Order: sequence, then C-alpha cells, then structure tokens
Amino acid sequence: MPIKSANDVQAQVVKAGDKTTIQVLQEGPNFAMRRFVMQPGGGMPEHTNTVEHEQYVLRGCANIGIGGGVYSVKAGDVVFIPEGVPHWYQNVGEEDFEFLCTIPNKPDEIRVIGKEC
Amino acid sequence: MPIKSANDVQAQVVKAGDKTTIQVLQEGPNFAMRRFVMQPGGGMPEHTNTVEHEQYVLRGCANIGIGGGVYSVKAGDVVFIPEGVPHWYQNVGEEDFEFLCTIPNKPDEIRVIGKEC
Repeated sequence: MPIKSANDVQAQVVKAGDKTTIQVLQEGPNFAMRRFVMQPGGGMPEHTNTVEHEQYVLRGCANIGIGGGVYSVKAGDVVFIPEGVPHWYQNVGEEDFEFLCTIPNKPDEIRVIGKEC
Repeated sequence: MPIKSANDVQAQVVKAGDKTTIQVLQEGPNFAMRRFVMQPGGGMPEHTNTVEHEQYVLRGCANIGIGGGVYSVKAGDVVFIPEGVPHWYQNVGEEDFEFLCTIPNKPDEIRVIGKEC
C-alpha cells in the first residue's frame, strides 16, 4: 500500500534519549522519513550523527542546540542539522514535541557527547 | 540560520497544477524537502517524475491517484510514490490540502500524461 497512517507505525523508545520515541514512517531507495515524539520534559542529549537531518516541526515547542547555538522551535519550523554537528533537543512545552526527521540512506553513527566510554 | 519558519519561505505557483503552490523548505546535500498547498478544488493532473516522493500530509484531505489506484488521504498520512509511477492529486475538502514532499537530489523530469505535445 502506498498510503499509511503515521499513527499506525510502531514507535520504539530511543535509548539515547529521555521520554523519546521514534517511528520509521518510510524507507525509500534514497532516504528515510522518521517521526520523533518527545514527551514534556523529554529530549535528547548533545550528540553527533554521520548523516544530515532535514526536519519539520509538527507539534509542540522545544529548544534545540545546534553547533553551540540554542534555538526555540515550534510547529511549522524547518530545521537543518548538517552531518557531524553536535545537537540536542529539550521539550520545554506542556505537550508532546513532535517532528519529522529525514536522513539519507547512508551509514549513520550516533555519538553522545561526554559518553565516549 | 539552521531554523526557519516554513511560512516565511516564498511560495511559487506550480504551472502544471491547478490552484497549487510549492515552497522549497530545505535543500540539503542529498535530498530536498518541499511543501505543497492545494486550494479547495485544486490539484495536479496525472503525471510522472523521474524521482521518488516521500510525503507527509499536514492538513486537509484529498484523493491521490497512484499507479491506477485511488486513495483518500488526510493529516498524518504517509504517502510513497515510486519513481516513474503515474500519480495525481485532487483536493476534495473545504480547506487547503497541505503536504510535505521530499525528493532526492537527482535529475527530475515531470511529464504530464496526455500532454506530450
């Protein structure tokens, strides 16, 4: 089926995160679309990936740290995180912070900063 | 700036469409995220592209034809259109039909079916 509801896609807990789940919505030949949901108070610690992220905020509001800058984001915001740039997320709202995150089909390695060992 | 509001991105009329605009939200090294808005009654005629589409419906409802099948879609639905497969869109609701559409950075050619000459 070429159509599915995102709500029907199984959510998995993101081990490196806090109160955060990921759903892999679509895996195409060149890139994959995922949806993250971070509950109030949740987020992800500072980390790097070996692939870039193109993101679109669906719901809620959060602070996102990218390469030393801190940005407040809300629904309808577009976020670009280049490969290798340290970044983190913190849901600072009272509802879920929900966003799409698309990555290329290339090997990804996540490295949480300060947890090398 | 790694953050922008999608509403601040200039919209361009899609010539092959009807009451349809496109915004190029982000152009990354491997793929591009665009947002389409189709006003009530608007849409796109049956056509093919040489690149696949991964889509996420943000608002409204529409019928989408993909490879001979017709699907009713609404907010939160995920749509995959493989490269080369004929497809069309028709906003059948009373509000704008709005969706994200991500494509790889590969040469794209749109061919409207029935309008070869």
